[in-house]
Amino acid sequence: MPNPSAAILVIGDEILSGRTRDSNMHHLAQRLTDHGITLAEARVVPDDHDRIVTALNALRAAYDHVFTSGGIGPTHDDITADAIAAAFGVAITHRADAMALLQAHYDRAGLPFNEARQRMARIPDGATLIDNPISTAPGFTLGNVHVMAGVPTIFEAMLAGVLPTLTGGAPLLSQSLRVNRGEGEIASDFAALAAAFPDLSMGSYPFNTNGVYGTNLVIRGTDAARIDAAMTRLAKMFA
Amino acid sequence: MPNPSAAILVIGDEILSGRTRDSNMHHLAQRLTDHGITLAEARVVPDDHDRIVTALNALRAAYDHVFTSGGIGPTHDDITADAIAAAFGVAITHRADAMALLQAHYDRAGLPFNEARQRMARIPDGATLIDNPISTAPGFTLGNVHVMAGVPTIFEAMLAGVLPTLTGGAPLLSQSLRVNRGEGEIASDFAALAAAFPDLSMGSYPFNTNGVYGTNLVIRGTDAARIDAAMTRLAKMFA
Repeated sequence: MPNPSAAILVIGDEILSGRTRDSNMHHLAQRLTDHGITLAEARVVPDDHDRIVTALNALRAAYDHVFTSGGIGPTHDDITADAIAAAFGVAITHRADAMALLQAHYDRAGLPFNEARQRMARIPDGATLIDNPISTAPGFTLGNVHVMAGVPTIFEAMLAGVLPTLTGGAPLLSQSLRVNRGEGEIASDFAALAAAFPDLSMGSYPFNTNGVYGTNLVIRGTDAARIDAAMTRLAKMFA
Repeated sequence: MPNPSAAILVIGDEILSGRTRDSNMHHLAQRLTDHGITLAEARVVPDDHDRIVTALNALRAAYDHVFTSGGIGPTHDDITADAIAAAFGVAITHRADAMALLQAHYDRAGLPFNEARQRMARIPDGATLIDNPISTAPGFTLGNVHVMAGVPTIFEAMLAGVLPTLTGGAPLLSQSLRVNRGEGEIASDFAALAAAFPDLSMGSYPFNTNGVYGTNLVIRGTDAARIDAAMTRLAKMFA
């Protein structure tokens, strides 16, 4: 049985304008690979209701899990929760458990739990809260969609809470060999090896370090013994 | 007239597995913003023919320009050029001008211009070559799609050649104000300001540096005078 599949939908004008460099996609990719879930697609869309709804509905129909990043804060440009509710066709309200969590948090901080902060307790009907150990305002899971914060430390903390609840498959393993030869020199032999191991995925990534051209050859799969067998042949090829 | 729109399609298993962190999306976002083209969407898909074709056709129908990154090298996992040809329904052949460029390059280097290297001269019918000042193997433009290398230095060099040929609009300008207050404290006033300047885009980005919580408030638009006017009001609000 193939591993479960996932996508990430990164939401935010600041990524597409180049102001901020996204790091959540890369973090999620690494964690999912370790957990045996295949990250199969990533998308970035702006803070636009219709664009979020359309992308979310496409992704949640296509993959086992969808993770979203961004747009769940207290300000006017935080529109993700409403877009998720619209995508699922459910209502969104200030939920009592989320209100209580946030009320206690701002009481402890001696800050007013004002209308803007209360926005962060707006949760679509039927969702389960995702714990936010950093700044309390929760994420949520609705169906196969996990809605998380854009701030990387909070995204990462939320993911650490969600991931153990998801059934993973076999972790995707990889081994790599660095050769000081260009891709064009090794391509033919490497293609033959890939053809001999159709159950593995093989990729080549050229580099140029201090004027030395070379290639990192990467073999990926879920069966460690098969990867070992392929690596042994690869190492002999380019010894 | 709104600025032209663009999307980027990043192609590569190595991005989705977490092995490599993409940097081309962020670089493109910054360059397009300067050039007055709006980066409206980004997608990452694996090295899979059908997935590339489907995503490419969706994006080229939706936006004025599509940039692709990755998968145009000499190895068996480099399948982008074939997928682009399939998406457009055109043939792909070893093109004479690309063959001549590469032959001369490998002759100079004293390396055989073998079958794998000749693969990099396979160009879909009707395309225009994109110059590669780093390693010669060209990218290409077909219709509104600009097909470029995944290696960041080469992607950036190709983009530097392509961008001046594209008609841009007004550069997207931005100014930002850093306030040592949480988002929940400034949200109401900031939303009112955003409502008063519907021609501008305003976003807030929380930070936590050395235990200090604060927010970067960013105002974006194409009219410098309007941004100045909004910033003046913003600065008074949080003085």
